[in-house]
Amino acid sequence: MSFDSTADSTVSPTLELALDLIRRRSVTPVDAGCQPLMAERLAALGFAIEPMRFGEVDNLWARRGSDGPLFCFAGHTDVVPPGPLTDWTSDPFAPEIRDGLLYGRGACDMKGSLAAMITATERFVGEHPDHQGSIAFLITSDEEGPSIDGTRRVVEALSARNERIDYALVGEPSSHQRLGDIIKNGRRGSLGGRLRIRGKQGHVAYPTLADNPVHRAAPALAELCTECWDEGNDHFPPTSFQISNIHAGTGADNVIPGELEVLFNLRFSTEQTPERLQQRIHAILDSHGLDHEINWRVSGHPFLTPAGALVEATQAAILAITGKPTQLSTIGGTSDGRFIAPTGAQVVELGPINATIHKVNECVGIEELDQLSTIYTDILYQLLG
Amino acid sequence: MSFDSTADSTVSPTLELALDLIRRRSVTPVDAGCQPLMAERLAALGFAIEPMRFGEVDNLWARRGSDGPLFCFAGHTDVVPPGPLTDWTSDPFAPEIRDGLLYGRGACDMKGSLAAMITATERFVGEHPDHQGSIAFLITSDEEGPSIDGTRRVVEALSARNERIDYALVGEPSSHQRLGDIIKNGRRGSLGGRLRIRGKQGHVAYPTLADNPVHRAAPALAELCTECWDEGNDHFPPTSFQISNIHAGTGADNVIPGELEVLFNLRFSTEQTPERLQQRIHAILDSHGLDHEINWRVSGHPFLTPAGALVEATQAAILAITGKPTQLSTIGGTSDGRFIAPTGAQVVELGPINATIHKVNECVGIEELDQLSTIYTDILYQLLG
Repeated sequence: MSFDSTADSTVSPTLELALDLIRRRSVTPVDAGCQPLMAERLAALGFAIEPMRFGEVDNLWARRGSDGPLFCFAGHTDVVPPGPLTDWTSDPFAPEIRDGLLYGRGACDMKGSLAAMITATERFVGEHPDHQGSIAFLITSDEEGPSIDGTRRVVEALSARNERIDYALVGEPSSHQRLGDIIKNGRRGSLGGRLRIRGKQGHVAYPTLADNPVHRAAPALAELCTECWDEGNDHFPPTSFQISNIHAGTGADNVIPGELEVLFNLRFSTEQTPERLQQRIHAILDSHGLDHEINWRVSGHPFLTPAGALVEATQAAILAITGKPTQLSTIGGTSDGRFIAPTGAQVVELGPINATIHKVNECVGIEELDQLSTIYTDILYQLLG
Repeated sequence: MSFDSTADSTVSPTLELALDLIRRRSVTPVDAGCQPLMAERLAALGFAIEPMRFGEVDNLWARRGSDGPLFCFAGHTDVVPPGPLTDWTSDPFAPEIRDGLLYGRGACDMKGSLAAMITATERFVGEHPDHQGSIAFLITSDEEGPSIDGTRRVVEALSARNERIDYALVGEPSSHQRLGDIIKNGRRGSLGGRLRIRGKQGHVAYPTLADNPVHRAAPALAELCTECWDEGNDHFPPTSFQISNIHAGTGADNVIPGELEVLFNLRFSTEQTPERLQQRIHAILDSHGLDHEINWRVSGHPFLTPAGALVEATQAAILAITGKPTQLSTIGGTSDGRFIAPTGAQVVELGPINATIHKVNECVGIEELDQLSTIYTDILYQLLG
């Protein structure tokens, strides 16, 4: 059954706001009124509201206070497309609660976190109207898309006016099996390459007149796939290399292809630089005598927030609220933390259990949301209370 | 300028018939009246005419005499499509002579040969109306296409009634730099495979949760590409392995593919059997622990006509007419000889210089056609005269 929050006295403020946000069809890059809803709540608390629209992307910068340190909640209102609606048990944009779980697109990634950030801030500001430092919200509607006109551009605008974030708490769903078991205190970098290996087309019956780029490339690819790039370090696993696409051939089975195309990606730690990895890959290909070219794309540099005030406050808050310890991790995909960290900010990601993100029947525990709000409040207490 | 043969007294009978055949747009599997034209000429010589239509393919079986040995001219009236007409200097179906060359689709492959076969037979029968043995023509309109309802079916029909060919002279353009420098006395077999290697799809950021089939396959492909399958023999080069197509990936650069598909082809000699090659390839893939399957297709078994009456007569005729020796070869693609040889026939391929076959501005020397007709006549003299 569809959920009518106004008729149910058990609905917490965090759940109620999450329901409101999920009902807005904010598929990337559409915000669909999510940021205005958040801005209205923040304005009531005395936040200065600053919408920042770049291209077709809505962003929100909201700040309460002018002193340092500046603590910033960071997140996104956009969601990935729901996919086939018939695969969902209930409408992804008409949230439903079943067995203590809130179902809807974005429930977990990351409208639940956004709701928890708002209610945490309301609770904290209500009790500490004269808190130390400043609280800010950096919210974008393009985290799931190209991520060009979103957090990246807001950070550039802030830097241009010397507005510096000290602590950034990103609401990405970091938890694995229970809320807070894992927080992300860094991310690996991502380096992509589109490799073209040239040969010479010909007829399979006359191989000596052709030069098969698949044959020439095979031992080089085998070497790239087994290469040990580094050993990682205390915070990062070893750099990984993965081929995502490989294509050659015209479709005809009697033609030796003239070119081979390979798309690959490296996830790399702070032990590496893109330049060093690029040099090593070219050297391996050259050692096999391959006529090749690579179009490179660095989609994220690695970053790390080692032990410090933000990590310690987050770990302490999780222990206080859940009674359980937390583990630091840097694995997984990229997040908008990669745009904030280079400014010198400490960056930590803490959000719900990520088992259902980007899937049909995405859901989050309703008690989990209330706990998350309480943890966020506790972090604010420790850093600005 | 367009060529009007009736107005030119220098036109030889072979050239005139070649012009007539090229004007008929017999793109596979359409015969476009070529076989009736040939049948009319052969009927006038006393040949028994037997059209054999299978599916949408026209075939012609014509025989003069009932005794053995049975000498058979074999060939095809169909041509490959001309491609973009604007690339041709003159209309591919309106033959033109320029600088001693006859231009048109099929001039070389193989309407020129067909014309030479007819005029050679007319000359021979005119002088030897009571020749030994029998002469036959086995002509199809599907050699350039699937080759299922063409020569293969005619040979089956002949075998079913115990009609056995002793000597088959196929008119495929075998010559390289001068007429008769190379004849084909065999062909390699062709074994194709569509290989699927299964892995497990996943996100490039979590390689340990996936199983990249490209990574697993790379060393196995490298081994297949460098494997020595055999040393060949006096008549055949070593077996060759070529990958014609390789594909994996969804297009997305952050997804580890779940499957790799590889199309490959082996050209193999009489040293091999398809079964032995299949076993060795599976063994190599198994030794790399690959979860794989292969759909096999044998598109031709190897055949060889060693020294014997047909080869000797052909070599002697070339030497007598051109003054130059000839070389035996088994390289190159498949031909319809592969369907005739298994019946026990001696099979040799002799035709014009093949430099322009399947290309725009396909052409053949007009003196070459007359010489070819004379060589064909000389072979008939030697075997049936």
